[in-house]
Amino acid sequence: MSPVTATLLRHRLRHLRHHHIRLNSTAVPSHFNLPLAVPSHFNLPLNHPTYLIWSANTSLGKTLVSTGIASSFLLHQPSSSPPAAHSSKLLYLKPIQTGFPSDSDSRFVFSKLDSLSLRLRIPLSISNSVLRSSRPVAEALRRNIKVSESGMCDLNFSEEKTVTGAPELLCKTLYAWEAAISPHLAAEREHATVEDSVVLKMVEQEMECGSKANVLCLVETAGGVASPGPSGTLQCDLYRPFRLPGILVGDGRLGGISGTIAAYESLKLRGYDVAAVVFEDHGLVNEVPLTSYLRNKVPVLVLPPVPKDPSDDLIEWFVESDGVFKALKEVMVSVYLERVERLNGMAKQAGEVFWWPFTQHKLVPEDNVTVIDSRCGENFSVFKASDNNSITQQFDACASWWTQGPDPAFQAELAREMGYTAARFGHVMFPENVYEPALKCAELLLDGVGKGWASRVYFSDNGSTAIEIGLKMAFRKFCVDHETLFGLSEDAEEKKHVDVKVLALRGSYHGDTLGAMEAQAPSPYTGFLQQPWYTGRGLFLEPPTVFLSNGTWNLSLPESFSQTASEECGTFTTRDEIFDKSRDTSVLATVYSTYVSEQLQEYSGISQSAHVGALIIEPVIHGAGGMHMVDPLFQRVLVNECRNRKIPVIFDEVFTGFWRLGVETTADLLGCKPDIACFAKLLTGGMIPLAVTLATDAVFDSFSGDSKLKALLHGHSYSAHAMGCATATKAIEWFKDPETNHNIDSQRGTLRELWDEELVQHISCHCAVERVVVLGTLFALELKVDASNSGYASLYAKSLLEMLREDGIFMRPLGNVVYLMCGPCTSPEICRRLLTKLHKRLGEFNRA
Amino acid sequence: MSPVTATLLRHRLRHLRHHHIRLNSTAVPSHFNLPLAVPSHFNLPLNHPTYLIWSANTSLGKTLVSTGIASSFLLHQPSSSPPAAHSSKLLYLKPIQTGFPSDSDSRFVFSKLDSLSLRLRIPLSISNSVLRSSRPVAEALRRNIKVSESGMCDLNFSEEKTVTGAPELLCKTLYAWEAAISPHLAAEREHATVEDSVVLKMVEQEMECGSKANVLCLVETAGGVASPGPSGTLQCDLYRPFRLPGILVGDGRLGGISGTIAAYESLKLRGYDVAAVVFEDHGLVNEVPLTSYLRNKVPVLVLPPVPKDPSDDLIEWFVESDGVFKALKEVMVSVYLERVERLNGMAKQAGEVFWWPFTQHKLVPEDNVTVIDSRCGENFSVFKASDNNSITQQFDACASWWTQGPDPAFQAELAREMGYTAARFGHVMFPENVYEPALKCAELLLDGVGKGWASRVYFSDNGSTAIEIGLKMAFRKFCVDHETLFGLSEDAEEKKHVDVKVLALRGSYHGDTLGAMEAQAPSPYTGFLQQPWYTGRGLFLEPPTVFLSNGTWNLSLPESFSQTASEECGTFTTRDEIFDKSRDTSVLATVYSTYVSEQLQEYSGISQSAHVGALIIEPVIHGAGGMHMVDPLFQRVLVNECRNRKIPVIFDEVFTGFWRLGVETTADLLGCKPDIACFAKLLTGGMIPLAVTLATDAVFDSFSGDSKLKALLHGHSYSAHAMGCATATKAIEWFKDPETNHNIDSQRGTLRELWDEELVQHISCHCAVERVVVLGTLFALELKVDASNSGYASLYAKSLLEMLREDGIFMRPLGNVVYLMCGPCTSPEICRRLLTKLHKRLGEFNRA
Repeated sequence: MSPVTATLLRHRLRHLRHHHIRLNSTAVPSHFNLPLAVPSHFNLPLNHPTYLIWSANTSLGKTLVSTGIASSFLLHQPSSSPPAAHSSKLLYLKPIQTGFPSDSDSRFVFSKLDSLSLRLRIPLSISNSVLRSSRPVAEALRRNIKVSESGMCDLNFSEEKTVTGAPELLCKTLYAWEAAISPHLAAEREHATVEDSVVLKMVEQEMECGSKANVLCLVETAGGVASPGPSGTLQCDLYRPFRLPGILVGDGRLGGISGTIAAYESLKLRGYDVAAVVFEDHGLVNEVPLTSYLRNKVPVLVLPPVPKDPSDDLIEWFVESDGVFKALKEVMVSVYLERVERLNGMAKQAGEVFWWPFTQHKLVPEDNVTVIDSRCGENFSVFKASDNNSITQQFDACASWWTQGPDPAFQAELAREMGYTAARFGHVMFPENVYEPALKCAELLLDGVGKGWASRVYFSDNGSTAIEIGLKMAFRKFCVDHETLFGLSEDAEEKKHVDVKVLALRGSYHGDTLGAMEAQAPSPYTGFLQQPWYTGRGLFLEPPTVFLSNGTWNLSLPESFSQTASEECGTFTTRDEIFDKSRDTSVLATVYSTYVSEQLQEYSGISQSAHVGALIIEPVIHGAGGMHMVDPLFQRVLVNECRNRKIPVIFDEVFTGFWRLGVETTADLLGCKPDIACFAKLLTGGMIPLAVTLATDAVFDSFSGDSKLKALLHGHSYSAHAMGCATATKAIEWFKDPETNHNIDSQRGTLRELWDEELVQHISCHCAVERVVVLGTLFALELKVDASNSGYASLYAKSLLEMLREDGIFMRPLGNVVYLMCGPCTSPEICRRLLTKLHKRLGEFNRA
Repeated sequence: MSPVTATLLRHRLRHLRHHHIRLNSTAVPSHFNLPLAVPSHFNLPLNHPTYLIWSANTSLGKTLVSTGIASSFLLHQPSSSPPAAHSSKLLYLKPIQTGFPSDSDSRFVFSKLDSLSLRLRIPLSISNSVLRSSRPVAEALRRNIKVSESGMCDLNFSEEKTVTGAPELLCKTLYAWEAAISPHLAAEREHATVEDSVVLKMVEQEMECGSKANVLCLVETAGGVASPGPSGTLQCDLYRPFRLPGILVGDGRLGGISGTIAAYESLKLRGYDVAAVVFEDHGLVNEVPLTSYLRNKVPVLVLPPVPKDPSDDLIEWFVESDGVFKALKEVMVSVYLERVERLNGMAKQAGEVFWWPFTQHKLVPEDNVTVIDSRCGENFSVFKASDNNSITQQFDACASWWTQGPDPAFQAELAREMGYTAARFGHVMFPENVYEPALKCAELLLDGVGKGWASRVYFSDNGSTAIEIGLKMAFRKFCVDHETLFGLSEDAEEKKHVDVKVLALRGSYHGDTLGAMEAQAPSPYTGFLQQPWYTGRGLFLEPPTVFLSNGTWNLSLPESFSQTASEECGTFTTRDEIFDKSRDTSVLATVYSTYVSEQLQEYSGISQSAHVGALIIEPVIHGAGGMHMVDPLFQRVLVNECRNRKIPVIFDEVFTGFWRLGVETTADLLGCKPDIACFAKLLTGGMIPLAVTLATDAVFDSFSGDSKLKALLHGHSYSAHAMGCATATKAIEWFKDPETNHNIDSQRGTLRELWDEELVQHISCHCAVERVVVLGTLFALELKVDASNSGYASLYAKSLLEMLREDGIFMRPLGNVVYLMCGPCTSPEICRRLLTKLHKRLGEFNRA
């Protein structure tokens, strides 16, 4: 609000205090002052429009605009048509108020509406309350109060004036401080702080107005869009989880075009929608450039100049401005209706135009479709038509198909980075060129996941392309190292036709393009009707696996191994023991080694027509294959046996890389290095597609020569696109820096344990659970399916997951395997809550 | 500058006018006032630091900061060490000044430095000049001037004070208006406008200071970061092509945190780097939240409060602030040095860590690597170490590997959209979900390129994956339609082993993953050493092609066709004739039809073990295959013949789609519809990877069933990622809207002709040119190579392209084919300039 109106307000407040207002007290729930560091589940009503009132700067008249909207919404002559089923109700919230009580925006709205109601002779019920405040405020008001731990007091100030059947105005100030300064400074000086999550919880509760048809809710912010709230969090970040649409009060003065545009951009850069821009006319026709900038898509409304005479009570100004506020109100209602209509139609429309991957559309009824309005950090904001048109929060436990990493702070940082990179580079082609994001990204990769072995970075678009490139690299290296097998050496008389195979593990998965598919063992996904060109060009071995069951880590050997070995090495006391390098000298290591040698035997020797030209493994965890943990000793033996035979080794870290398993690269878990490694998914922090294939100098050199035809002739248009490289750069740095990722154990360079060990043990002992795999950001369990139920495996898990969605957890099954996947920065506290809910629902599921 | 300093300045100006300043005139080149709507080639010196001085709002003290920096840079006691080879020189530019002459920021800097020099007893040479102004300014100064067409006058006001051997300050105001309002309003009121490109050209010329070692250049903007310049373009957009680093003068007042952060974000959202934030202290410790927001990466400097007494000449304040300005100057110098050092090292570093696609690294010496500092619309900003460390502009005639569409305005719009989408959605998983960007994108696709035939959208990551998905779709449809061939019908006794082939054209290219490669005819790119798994699973036909040569469009038939047909239909009068549907009834159509039938014969009938299960074509143009135009009649015949046999038809529009060939979909050029079509590249406006495969209901239905296993089991983690879908949505709308794309011919719904027809004719007649292909955004020519030179084809083109890079055109050859590719919004004027340069260099090339 402007200095003028602030002065007026002080005048009016003094006046009203001695007038016809009745004071009373209302109870404030006591839990509001709990320091909830972790945001919890929310449920926002969408059965009426709610708007945030933002401003490009302080003193631009946010409160005047709120008042005008309220007046336009509440004070109109009853129409001649039949009366509406419900009378109008406007809720005005001022969550954060400083300079109180001399400044009180809720009081201003309250008193102005009172005056306007009298002037226009339209009856109105009005109330104003102030719920909590700092001690200095309470003392100034001589209230007898209890100070809580955070320094906030229950003020419970309230004044009201009731007219039965009249439209209703509720004004509320949620938190008030005395000093007329920024809230973060006032909170500090008055020793009265409030956590962001507490503010949000309070706003959420106050916004709930029942389902009356004609309700409008305004939430007025304090200061400018990026002014700090009481905790120091910028207000545009503080309110972001709700992502309420906004009205931006702009600046009509000299310099105001710039300030208004910049504020608008800061809101958009946080994912907000702005329904209209409104500002006071200062005779500079700022609306012209603003309308041009907004490309006519967001209406720009101009209010008449506010009288500068301090004795003016502004009532005439409000009357004069009624047309503008009416137009504004109409924009707000129509934008709201359009949004709700669109959200309601999206599930049906999706079923008609999308072709979802891995989805049998016949099995997805309309009400099973999740309508996602936005995401904030690890949480989806989901629209629920069934739940009376509301927006609710669900933890994305699929980590958006295993890619996602950001918490809310990192998402905001990435959004800025993407805006910057798009503006600076857009996309620039890669071959023979260099630009900062690609170079920086490559340097970080070679100094991180490639450290100690890799020296070249090949960029592509996704895991599948990275694998195809990796295979091409490996085969070339193999051919160059084994020239005589192929008749490639200079003295060879002719080239020989040789079949090149890949050594891979059953249950591993490397992507959906044909080259990557060929490296997978046959499965329902590779059948003739899926891809008639699939032949399965591999030597596929069944791997030994480890899992947690009834509190113990067990080793499971496939039938191909001798019974003896199986009995000798059945269990582990701890998970660490599984990864212990001392196992290299065990009997089992010899058993593995012998087995692998035998398998490779038939592809050895110059007379064979088929050779194994590459080894490819997903280190430690087979993801898409059902969240199986492969015995790392077996994989280490495989690597060593191949290396002894000069067979290049590819690590497919598309799923496992970048902290998914608690380490930046799973090579560290396996304790051995590859020749080639593929990364994607979490590489960009889970923002946009990008993949890399890293390789050693020796691999690179096998493509070197005087002819271009010897080069690796594979590429994609967006190779090393600046946007992907820039986000990857940010993500690599963010995830490994203890300053930004509190999960980093600086000493060990790994993530600390995210999943509560005791709870994990409990769950592994649950009678509904066959096995558990837990490592890094992954918690997975296989449900026990008895023979009679086995045909319905996926349906079986479905009911469990539906219950968990009600709890605010978004999961998807892999057959009868269900999993929780978090980001590298997700707090153990959140993980504990997820596990607790899962544990609880397992009990109910089992009883059902 | 603050009102206080403005008052002071007025006082000083009056004072100085009667004092020891000598006035003189300097000539301003007359070409500066040409209305250059099209930005032209520029060359920015990087041999000294240059900074833009930005401000979060008006009146925050930009000019005080400029003055302080100048003082810190110029006025220090000579050190005892040997004198520097060059004395210091500071260039202060104020491109846009309103309120002149009472406000003159260059005068302020000039006069303060004069005073400070006297006060500190350090000699200084100073000058101040004002180059051009509106008529009212000129009249007020009683200058005898000539008014140009744009209303600007050559003012040529200059004052100076020279001390031989002393450090030097040059202050210049480039354009001045009288009214103290926003430049766009002043320009309008005073009938004195200036085009953006003219302002830039002027700034560029004035920034050139020779190669003296100790130079610093400041370019002070007017008002806030997003205040309009004289043309109405926001200043942050106006200066964007140079992307100079900036100093942001922030706001220390209440509300100033928000204003400063918002201004900072508006700069970042346009790709600018900000080296430091500096503001006047108002006692609110705004530096704390600002430093926190900036994550300690950008220094925040606080200046002492500016004396409010109007009689204070601020000299003591400058002396007091010297420490802050010294620190600021040091930041500016070190940020500059780091940037130049990095830019100088990038080419070498790239050669050591990158593995470029399609590149024989041995053939790329360090000085052939292009260092791209940024892009602005269609232009790269390229760093040239060889050219005395400068940044120069090159038109990206590769359209960044055939993907790029944006002009500068669209790039800025896309940057905002990406920031918004990242903040709102990040990435959210696709299957069984719906969210606005994916739904909107799908709707636009089905209403645009899929209109009239497609009803489903399958999202993936790039052209190659889109093709693999398209092939899987086609094969399934074929299998379902021809159950008996495969033993798939219910009454079949057993499944038969059948080889499924794809019908494709020689010279067509569909991607680099194995499945896409298999649909290509054998070539050097498919050899055993490239991909030992490639077998070529196609029936590959040699297509007839058309091209322009010696001013005439010719048809070239492969040998497989009879000589008679060839002679009958050898030439076309116009390009339109080639696409004329009346050709369907020609003799040639019958010839084509007979040929195709014959070819398909051996794959027909139930007894065959191989069947053609899909047709795939790149409609009209074979891109990667060498920019060949295939006779559209032949492709139409192919489509019809396949449709008659229930063989599904795939259009690979990855290269050709979205206006590349002047139409949104090339189906419109061919005059027939596919069953499946693949799009990528320009789909997102050339920003980030995204691909789609569109399909008919009939194709979709062949995957419908009660089992998930019948669904299309192919997917990528980032399927339908929000970022890609949002940019695609923007791009689809932007490119087809005549309001945003001035190349759209609203009546015909196509792009107008971009390449000057007369020039094209000339070039096609050039003796160095074998053939020309021109369509939509593509102009390609094949260089004539005689037998003795044919082995050096690519080297042959290289020297031509090197000359063109000197002309500011970035091209890459495809063997001896060179091409110019622009965006759908690129103006014909730019295309004409490109063609003219190419034509000129062809002459030189031929003589060489």
